[in-house]
Amino acid sequence: MSDIIEPRVLKGFRDYLPDAESARASLMRRLESTFQAFGFVPIDTPSLEYAEILLGKGGGETDKQVYRFVDHGGRDVALRFDLTVPFARFMAEHVEELYLPFRRYHMAKVWRGENTQRGRYREFMQCDFDIVGTDSASADADVVQVIASAMKALDVGDVRVRVNHRGLFNRFLAAAGCSDKSVALLRAVDKLEKIGEADTLALLATEVGGAVAARILDFIKPEGDFASTLAKLFSFCAPDDAEAVAARDRLADVYKIVQASGLADSIVLDPSITRGLDYYTGVVFETQLVALPSIGSVCSGGRYNELASLYTTKKLPGVGASVGLDRLIAALDALGVSARGKAGSAVLVANQGEALLESYHAAASRLRGKGVAAEVFPEAKRLLAQYGYAEKKGIPYALLLDEASLAAGQYPLRDLAKRSTATFASFEELAAFLGSAR
Amino acid sequence: MSDIIEPRVLKGFRDYLPDAESARASLMRRLESTFQAFGFVPIDTPSLEYAEILLGKGGGETDKQVYRFVDHGGRDVALRFDLTVPFARFMAEHVEELYLPFRRYHMAKVWRGENTQRGRYREFMQCDFDIVGTDSASADADVVQVIASAMKALDVGDVRVRVNHRGLFNRFLAAAGCSDKSVALLRAVDKLEKIGEADTLALLATEVGGAVAARILDFIKPEGDFASTLAKLFSFCAPDDAEAVAARDRLADVYKIVQASGLADSIVLDPSITRGLDYYTGVVFETQLVALPSIGSVCSGGRYNELASLYTTKKLPGVGASVGLDRLIAALDALGVSARGKAGSAVLVANQGEALLESYHAAASRLRGKGVAAEVFPEAKRLLAQYGYAEKKGIPYALLLDEASLAAGQYPLRDLAKRSTATFASFEELAAFLGSAR
Repeated sequence: MSDIIEPRVLKGFRDYLPDAESARASLMRRLESTFQAFGFVPIDTPSLEYAEILLGKGGGETDKQVYRFVDHGGRDVALRFDLTVPFARFMAEHVEELYLPFRRYHMAKVWRGENTQRGRYREFMQCDFDIVGTDSASADADVVQVIASAMKALDVGDVRVRVNHRGLFNRFLAAAGCSDKSVALLRAVDKLEKIGEADTLALLATEVGGAVAARILDFIKPEGDFASTLAKLFSFCAPDDAEAVAARDRLADVYKIVQASGLADSIVLDPSITRGLDYYTGVVFETQLVALPSIGSVCSGGRYNELASLYTTKKLPGVGASVGLDRLIAALDALGVSARGKAGSAVLVANQGEALLESYHAAASRLRGKGVAAEVFPEAKRLLAQYGYAEKKGIPYALLLDEASLAAGQYPLRDLAKRSTATFASFEELAAFLGSAR
Repeated sequence: MSDIIEPRVLKGFRDYLPDAESARASLMRRLESTFQAFGFVPIDTPSLEYAEILLGKGGGETDKQVYRFVDHGGRDVALRFDLTVPFARFMAEHVEELYLPFRRYHMAKVWRGENTQRGRYREFMQCDFDIVGTDSASADADVVQVIASAMKALDVGDVRVRVNHRGLFNRFLAAAGCSDKSVALLRAVDKLEKIGEADTLALLATEVGGAVAARILDFIKPEGDFASTLAKLFSFCAPDDAEAVAARDRLADVYKIVQASGLADSIVLDPSITRGLDYYTGVVFETQLVALPSIGSVCSGGRYNELASLYTTKKLPGVGASVGLDRLIAALDALGVSARGKAGSAVLVANQGEALLESYHAAASRLRGKGVAAEVFPEAKRLLAQYGYAEKKGIPYALLLDEASLAAGQYPLRDLAKRSTATFASFEELAAFLGSAR
């Protein structure tokens, strides 16, 4: 006993048991179908990269969350902490082999040594999609459409993609004479939902004084619909400001395209959406579940000017978003929507004697030929134990072949939930029933 | 320029561009379908674990290939180097929450700092499947059937699952009086295909002398069919040896089950198959592509007595195998079988003027509603550039909507390979054509 090593995982890391893994895989398959319907293609990049690539040249102590170490060859390496930086490196390296605009999705794990007390995991799946090589309303609108369509495919109910444009906010700040504080102001506004209006006002006031703070708070309040909110936002900017005009026109174009695609109900203009990061330069998105707003944004992103400027002089403007898979899984749980995939077989071929193993396997093999997932219980344990196994695994039926039924060419099938047995007169009838049962 | 970081990946690591990633994903989806048809369920485990868990307590210098480091919390951690050790830890930790027998598959990346000069990668996908909690011919036969069925689903042509039983070899060595050399002898036999008969004989002779070496070489030569090879192997053992009898009967039962399932052509008894590892205790498998034997085994495995004895006193016998995904991809290339998945959309909605963007997006959205993957070119570049984009991405058609065709309710579709345009009189006709074109 003393030689036994205690089986445990690292803090912040998780095992996925079959039902949880099936549910996750099912969500990912549905996301993937949506991405593909919009012409996005998959890529993959290494989990481990040069630390210099992931952190930049100055990255000595920049990111304490990164898993970084020296490998066997003395190289300074790190596990990727997001999929954006590897994508930037990927584009810089492969742009000549590819085509632009390049629409890619990437669903893969990333690692961050975060404080797990905040309910964060240190290993989690990211699902990113981006369109690079174009600065256009068409691409911006595509991302909004992908978000709305993906959420429909996931059965999470109605969603609101909350859209804003960094340019309008920035030009308003310019008009108000406080452009130099923009980063701090963006971050303060970003906290509105968490800390409430009064605290946001106080926070803004410490930066720019009470009068401008009140004006900012006014700016970030939406009107009744997209067009009137947009008109209001523009009215806060200088009317001859070309950047503000371009931002207003871009948002108007995005809305028209989304509307033409039948998704107008899914998009709202919300000037309080800023996204904390400096990175974004144009439209920004967050996605709210109407039935569960408290869970926060389940898909966020925006437009950036230069994806890969660390690795290439080539300009690569882009737009994209990242799906919060863990948050979506939590939302489906909270909404009582089953995210569960088919974890088990459709039928268990019960084992009532090892002399009949060949017949059991022949029947299972024929069922698979008809597209029915089937498994043979490998040992002749008592039937109740076999039923218990099936129920625990989520297998709804047990096929009860014995010498008599085999001789008669009959197929007795036990419904494990109803605890009743129906006998099918032919294999075809059995297969048709099981094929339609799931 | 001097601030640009050279974009590159670590030696032994790979980017997957869209066509390669689509091909890999398509292979994995087909493997997954086969696993599920046999009642296997998916799991996942952390990429990073305690080094003690992965390497055992004595693992100081045991495995120089393992990526091992100290994390932020001072923990001695390592990236998993296979999926078997994490599965053992997983079973020891979760067996009470699960059910036995437990059939799982796990397709995930593993990392080994191997010498890349041998064409090895340092990050690669493993695809493992196992049945634990039963020591039975039924489970052994299931693994053979999964291998044969999976290879059929992958279109790699005929395969031979080459089966052997460690017990017969061991009892033969006992009868020959050289059980103490079994590990060295197993490894020598394992090299037969690589180094040839003469060198294998020489290698064996250094261990046990020329006479026994010749007898071993005789033992590992198959006869014409499964039954006669099995009879020959048993004839080399002591006839009253219960272990040899059990091994013979197990192989005979496995063959009968595989035969009853219609896969007799896919299984051969090959006594030269030993698998190098001490780990295996019963049947062992390798899988040869009939059209490409030189590429080596594309799926290998066997039966083991105790999966998780490092982490639990609970006995967990099992049987399983691992699919060599990289080797299969290489084989499909060599065989000229396209492993390519659908990387691009079915149709590009060409952009002949940004004033029509709403109409383009409306058409694309309707096509997606009919299950046709469609994308809008985001900018009004010249048509030849848009065609070039589509061709590079593998999109076969371009929809040429302009004001005239939109007004007339017509849908001109350019076949990019044939360089010809056909006009559909209604959206339904267009959607039906594109829906059936792929």
